[in-house]
Amino acid sequence: MRRLPILVLLCLLGCGRREAVSLDRLQWLDLSHDFSSETIYWPTAKPFQMEIVSAQRTPAGYYYAANNFSAAEHGGTHLDAPVHFAEGQWTTDQIPLRNLIGPAVVVDVSSRAAGNSDYLVRPEDLQAWEAAHGPLPDSAIILIHTGWGKLWPDRARYLGTTKSGPEAIPELHFPGVDASAARWLVDQRHPRAVGIDTPSLDYGQSSTFDTHQILFAANIPGFENVANLDQLPPRGSWVVALPMKIKGGSGGPLRIVAAVRAK
Amino acid sequence: MRRLPILVLLCLLGCGRREAVSLDRLQWLDLSHDFSSETIYWPTAKPFQMEIVSAQRTPAGYYYAANNFSAAEHGGTHLDAPVHFAEGQWTTDQIPLRNLIGPAVVVDVSSRAAGNSDYLVRPEDLQAWEAAHGPLPDSAIILIHTGWGKLWPDRARYLGTTKSGPEAIPELHFPGVDASAARWLVDQRHPRAVGIDTPSLDYGQSSTFDTHQILFAANIPGFENVANLDQLPPRGSWVVALPMKIKGGSGGPLRIVAAVRAK
Repeated sequence: MRRLPILVLLCLLGCGRREAVSLDRLQWLDLSHDFSSETIYWPTAKPFQMEIVSAQRTPAGYYYAANNFSAAEHGGTHLDAPVHFAEGQWTTDQIPLRNLIGPAVVVDVSSRAAGNSDYLVRPEDLQAWEAAHGPLPDSAIILIHTGWGKLWPDRARYLGTTKSGPEAIPELHFPGVDASAARWLVDQRHPRAVGIDTPSLDYGQSSTFDTHQILFAANIPGFENVANLDQLPPRGSWVVALPMKIKGGSGGPLRIVAAVRAK
Repeated sequence: MRRLPILVLLCLLGCGRREAVSLDRLQWLDLSHDFSSETIYWPTAKPFQMEIVSAQRTPAGYYYAANNFSAAEHGGTHLDAPVHFAEGQWTTDQIPLRNLIGPAVVVDVSSRAAGNSDYLVRPEDLQAWEAAHGPLPDSAIILIHTGWGKLWPDRARYLGTTKSGPEAIPELHFPGVDASAARWLVDQRHPRAVGIDTPSLDYGQSSTFDTHQILFAANIPGFENVANLDQLPPRGSWVVALPMKIKGGSGGPLRIVAAVRAK
């Protein structure tokens, strides 16, 4: 058993220029939407529902609140485990913490996606980030900022439709990651995970989910409906993304936070 | 937008003796049990259930796995939000990240609880920790290690009964935190949160849940059914405990991890 305090030097990304920040000077940001009846799910998925069991004073005299809840794994801010689209790959509980915790970069395509709800992130977007900020570090958590997080929870604008059920699927319009960019990331930059502020890593008009297939075949988890990406710097943040640990799950509710240097 | 990497100095607990550790030298431990049909819930609560929606190749040719799930908020490794026993206090989504992330200490009472499934942690246990390790730091996450985590998922030994429903309640036997210790912590050490490796902060024989009431009246959240506390040092670890962000929730599934210096 170790009894001494630890002073941890986190060299978050690269180390070209270092600056010491104490724990109390770290600012934690919540990148998670909350779960309620307003939470956006895939149009064919079971939405989040809460049942109140108690919210009152008991006969014994103390106040007691408790609820039951139910949902699909894939809705709200959530994890896609690799098994979601890749048979035999990691289930939710099998994903190593290393793939959920680490340095993060934010690739901001929001100005390009603003006028195009079918925008596809391509390798050129990633290379433009590198031209501005230096090489994407190996083994980073890559967060794609399309600007869609600002549309939450306006279902019509966020999904492109207010319909539910199978007839909504052809009407889905939101940006995503093109298969070419997924392939480039897997082959060239080996990310720990890839997140996005839209309902899906593949864009709304996808019917084959190639980006899911490419990332998950490489056991790279996905984070979807991520919030507040406009509040993160392009590099230098540190993400902790902890899903509900569902045994054998294909995904699940995700609480994702990021540490940045306090101003 | 900040473009420079950050080097973070985390002075985890006190700073009497510092040691620099890089991010890659941090070891992350999972303090969470998984959710499955084996997961232990309070005998009167709705257990975790998973419904398989798909686990097969689709007509379009790609593999697709997805599930629905349902549960009570209070089961498995989970959060107790202060509103669980204190009307008007924080709901799950209202708890600041500051109360979920921070330096942790482990108070090990496992040798004293080993022969007594009704063991109650008292102020003397906390003061014994201080005699051995120095003052409990202000604003720490206090984790109570009773040894019960090793009994999971053996319901008979972990809960004291295999019954379910109201008739199980009088037969519950597991250690907890006495009201006197809860009061001492609230008044003297102002913890961010209090966790334990049993089903409840109050011991199994409690019928009034005084420790819940005392902590939650002070807006101090609880973490229950925490796993692997035998793997943490008494001090010097750093905990990130992220609950599913249920709006208006009284608790919810919790993924809790800890960083320690790698050996």
